[in-house]
Amino acid sequence: MTASPEMAVGSQTLDFDSLVVLLEQVFQRNGTSAEVAAILARNCAGAERDGAHSHGVFRIPGYVSTLASGWVNGKAVPVVEDVASGFVRVDAGNGFAQPALAAARDLLVHKARSAGIAVLAIRNSHHFAALWPDVEPFANEGLVALSVVNSMTCVVPHGADRPLFGTNPIAFAAPRAGGEPLVFDLATSAIAHGDVQIAARKGERLPVGMGVDSLGQPTQDPKAILEGGALLPFGGHKGSALSMMVELLAAALTGGNFSFEFDWSNHQGAKTPWTGQLLIVIDPSKAAGQGFAERSEELVRQMHGVGLKRLPGDRRHQQRARSLEQGIELDGQVLAELRELAGG
Amino acid sequence: MTASPEMAVGSQTLDFDSLVVLLEQVFQRNGTSAEVAAILARNCAGAERDGAHSHGVFRIPGYVSTLASGWVNGKAVPVVEDVASGFVRVDAGNGFAQPALAAARDLLVHKARSAGIAVLAIRNSHHFAALWPDVEPFANEGLVALSVVNSMTCVVPHGADRPLFGTNPIAFAAPRAGGEPLVFDLATSAIAHGDVQIAARKGERLPVGMGVDSLGQPTQDPKAILEGGALLPFGGHKGSALSMMVELLAAALTGGNFSFEFDWSNHQGAKTPWTGQLLIVIDPSKAAGQGFAERSEELVRQMHGVGLKRLPGDRRHQQRARSLEQGIELDGQVLAELRELAGG
Repeated sequence: MTASPEMAVGSQTLDFDSLVVLLEQVFQRNGTSAEVAAILARNCAGAERDGAHSHGVFRIPGYVSTLASGWVNGKAVPVVEDVASGFVRVDAGNGFAQPALAAARDLLVHKARSAGIAVLAIRNSHHFAALWPDVEPFANEGLVALSVVNSMTCVVPHGADRPLFGTNPIAFAAPRAGGEPLVFDLATSAIAHGDVQIAARKGERLPVGMGVDSLGQPTQDPKAILEGGALLPFGGHKGSALSMMVELLAAALTGGNFSFEFDWSNHQGAKTPWTGQLLIVIDPSKAAGQGFAERSEELVRQMHGVGLKRLPGDRRHQQRARSLEQGIELDGQVLAELRELAGG
Repeated sequence: MTASPEMAVGSQTLDFDSLVVLLEQVFQRNGTSAEVAAILARNCAGAERDGAHSHGVFRIPGYVSTLASGWVNGKAVPVVEDVASGFVRVDAGNGFAQPALAAARDLLVHKARSAGIAVLAIRNSHHFAALWPDVEPFANEGLVALSVVNSMTCVVPHGADRPLFGTNPIAFAAPRAGGEPLVFDLATSAIAHGDVQIAARKGERLPVGMGVDSLGQPTQDPKAILEGGALLPFGGHKGSALSMMVELLAAALTGGNFSFEFDWSNHQGAKTPWTGQLLIVIDPSKAAGQGFAERSEELVRQMHGVGLKRLPGDRRHQQRARSLEQGIELDGQVLAELRELAGG
């Protein structure tokens, strides 16, 4: 594959499958089982493919570090519990959340189609990835999906002095007749933690209202946020209320830890929040009226009609199409490091 | 009941039950059935009791106007459809949403306790009240509840030029061991429509970022928003994405109208959006680990520990306690108008 003219000097392209294979090697060599490696590699390569750089290969050193610390069990085998006709639980066994979802997925879909709605409560899990890859596949099967995951104390509740909540994202996906599903994944913090890390690395300042420094004072310096500071919720008391809801759904309702409950101080290099995740999947074929996907397509038409240029998820879907055609562009140095981590 | 010293001149107090009876008379005299009157009166008096003035007796002229216009059927009898083990539908019959919820409530709770989660999809309904009264009672029974309702085109999607979405609130309630449930009800618009109306009536200006005038220009004048202008979503693209989700859940998933689909131009005086409402109820006793209410109480302890003075719902619960002790204070003129509307 040849480099396109606008490509930065020193970058290289890989096709999606090659990146997945490389990342599988990285994960397996650094302590995961083959099963876990396959799931995490596909997830991480997918984020990179879709231009979601803060959750792409940028995360690999964090994965390696947290695995090396012994904080997370990369070989955990999730235990699925069939609790009720609409309720599935998974004990992720101190492993990653994505293999837990994968283990329960068929049962969850079966229940959602049968009962009309079903919930998956994952506990004892580490989620270190974007959330939209967890919901989008349901929409591709005609289902509506909502997921929340709590993370680690770094967000000051609106009206409080000190951080308590995690960045606590909410992701949603719904099918659509005329195109890719409608998908969003939003941190209930004013900015995602990964984006703060990327800004710090690039030496960029943040917009106003994203966070506070270690003294609780507003700051636009990403390093001041990362070094003892904290984030603010998006949208004031409303985003803060939603973040509280995420704690209740992802932790209290799963049996997982709240964002403030785990202590990784004995695990130097630990990076992954040890919490819980909730997914709700609804079968819209149970709804009255016209088919859901046609209805969501009508909403899309109307959104375009009032001047909306870009739908939630559009940018990712467009980048995905480009990446699948032209390959995934990676910085040469980053690629060399990945190959090193993969064992050469 | 004697007036308290700090009471404004011309105000009077009523106890809750007396206000309910008065409002029942208002509703019945203005076109609802006794059953619908009982439900709406309790709902509206409850908002007034809890200090939620924008959804209290302030709404009564709107109810009367919309009933007089023939736009809504105040005598509609909801039809409940048992679709699946976790899915209930209600055709509200062009009536109000609250009687539809009341008609399906027992079945919904039964399904949630049995399946672990259940969804109620109300369509062909008018919701003109606060949303938290719909979810809070579930939390009082130990259940977790989430509801969304779409309304009428008045919010410009982030990145668009013209309004499309409704104010599209999201309400959530969760039980708590040590006190009143955790409850919030937030418009996905930057401000609730009722609050704009109240500001306009009082001649007050709004904070920056709430809305635009009829030319799409930012304005702080509530009248400019009401007269051909529009609201903005809260929290930029994130609130906008949530508002889109509300359209999909409350309309596409129920068979109800989107906020832009109904045409009340032939019903002079019509005020109530003719859309849909979705409720999701989860039984947390199906969750792993410690009891949910103890876990949410722990979250509350920690929120207080980081300096949070007021929890979501606190202000309403405190005002409720005061109102139940001291009565509900109403402006004398308002009370006279209510009695007039009640035929007295």
